[in-house]
Amino acid sequence: MAVYTDVSDEALRAFLSQYDLGAPLSFKGIAEGVENSNFLLRTDTGNYILTLYEKRVNEAELPFFINLMGHLARAGLACPQPVRNRAGTALGRLCGRPAAIVTFLDGVSLSRPNAGHCRALGAALAGLHAAGRDFPMRRDNNLSVGAWRPLFVQAEAQADTVAPGLAERTRADLDVLEASWPVGLPSGVIHADLFTDNVFFIGDTLSGLIDFYFACTDAFAYDLAISLNAWCFDPDGTFHRDKAGAMIAGYDAVRRLEPAEVAALPILARGAAMRFMLTRLVDWLNVPAGALVQPKNPLEYDRRLAFHRAAKDARDYGWVG
Amino acid sequence: MAVYTDVSDEALRAFLSQYDLGAPLSFKGIAEGVENSNFLLRTDTGNYILTLYEKRVNEAELPFFINLMGHLARAGLACPQPVRNRAGTALGRLCGRPAAIVTFLDGVSLSRPNAGHCRALGAALAGLHAAGRDFPMRRDNNLSVGAWRPLFVQAEAQADTVAPGLAERTRADLDVLEASWPVGLPSGVIHADLFTDNVFFIGDTLSGLIDFYFACTDAFAYDLAISLNAWCFDPDGTFHRDKAGAMIAGYDAVRRLEPAEVAALPILARGAAMRFMLTRLVDWLNVPAGALVQPKNPLEYDRRLAFHRAAKDARDYGWVG
Repeated sequence: MAVYTDVSDEALRAFLSQYDLGAPLSFKGIAEGVENSNFLLRTDTGNYILTLYEKRVNEAELPFFINLMGHLARAGLACPQPVRNRAGTALGRLCGRPAAIVTFLDGVSLSRPNAGHCRALGAALAGLHAAGRDFPMRRDNNLSVGAWRPLFVQAEAQADTVAPGLAERTRADLDVLEASWPVGLPSGVIHADLFTDNVFFIGDTLSGLIDFYFACTDAFAYDLAISLNAWCFDPDGTFHRDKAGAMIAGYDAVRRLEPAEVAALPILARGAAMRFMLTRLVDWLNVPAGALVQPKNPLEYDRRLAFHRAAKDARDYGWVG
Repeated sequence: MAVYTDVSDEALRAFLSQYDLGAPLSFKGIAEGVENSNFLLRTDTGNYILTLYEKRVNEAELPFFINLMGHLARAGLACPQPVRNRAGTALGRLCGRPAAIVTFLDGVSLSRPNAGHCRALGAALAGLHAAGRDFPMRRDNNLSVGAWRPLFVQAEAQADTVAPGLAERTRADLDVLEASWPVGLPSGVIHADLFTDNVFFIGDTLSGLIDFYFACTDAFAYDLAISLNAWCFDPDGTFHRDKAGAMIAGYDAVRRLEPAEVAALPILARGAAMRFMLTRLVDWLNVPAGALVQPKNPLEYDRRLAFHRAAKDARDYGWVG
């Protein structure tokens, strides 16, 4: 939630001179995205988002994200569309950093989605998976099951300072997840970070999906499991079966879930909760003194893990197929 | 440069229900303003800025700022116009804080204004002073000459750790400023913070002035002296006489400077530099360890003070009247 790089009006004008977007009418840094600097740009021709990719982003991966957004937008998904400059490329350089301009999406993020919103999200997620089917590039999920033990090792010694017993139950969960993580499920491009702040609504209508910078190639049902975690629990761990059931039904109505995917939902949901618990735990333990940005609480996902540990099958998530 | 308060879509909707602005189409925190949380709001009816006034703002002073913007906008100045809700008031509450919606102004801030931009700024500043003439409210300048010695006392013991000799030359300057600070100059509403980031241009045309939260009642020529400091020096202290001469001429063409104002320009410019050197020095010495926001360097204004100390009269600032 920050702007890391100042862009002068002169640098902006020089950058825009490579595009057919017209003259800048307005240019404001926005508090969106944790890793990059984002600016809302208005020109004669419309509204855009200009992104500068900062140090933590692997530049070699940018063509995957940029090309994916272009591919999904052309396939009809409501997502930001990268704008090409006159040389035909959508990835340029500004202030010494890789930079791209994408179209602006209207819509507002919901803080407390209801079951109807969750159904719409499920349908949009299935639409994203369908639209990405013929995307030719591949990016491994570097935050999947193989990455969790190394993440935990960084936090293990201090884990119990965050919650008593956290280290022991995380070790036990990792043993289960590593032993039984499903393979061979239908796979392709997944968003992998479809939290509520990355989904826009106008009124009750879903208007778009943003922030594809965790997108990768993995099991479709794992993407659904991530959003079940993100959308269907309160911060205190309370699970909303009606929301989860609506999200799964919304997904299944657009892309039929296979029996193996349904059967894998509990372990996938448990793994998704583990992934976010661990990255939050590492951030939580490494926050610099005096930092202005409060890291997200890993215990929200520790509480979700307790639910997933007890779940028997997909019916516990509201599946009625 | 931050958003301090999260506003949920529900809180936003409840707040907007008091206005006739239509439904929210987009809502994004923007990195503008040091003291408040600012959001770019798009609705069916247009673009707006929603501001939440955070703790450091004195709530009792808000009606002065809000009413002033309304007054100046009605008088034809290109500045944000506060939007009234259906109860007829422009100051409401959101997330437990005072909040206001103002109209959005197009334009981009310049990082390196030229003499033509400075001339336009001078004319706009004189237009602001003229538009504020019949504004009935009054707010004393709490960062004028009487406030400088108490500010310095907070920083005096550590001043020489920032630059050798800074304490001694600041003490000597304060003696001169306190002994010879002009009184009885033409006065009224001044902006008091018209730096380049508070002035928008579209192409080379000045399109608007923003951020009236330092506005107060003081000598008009002091406002000009603040902008001379902000616009006509490089960070290394290099003075651009052509820019200063253009700014003064642009001002004088709209509102004729009186001989007493012209005579006072060097001492006013020296005082304006002292005011910003001191507030920056106090912030510089009080930055929390690990803070993400780098405070502005007080030495940029220490270098300007050296120029002002040597200036003999307004001709040294490019005045040719």
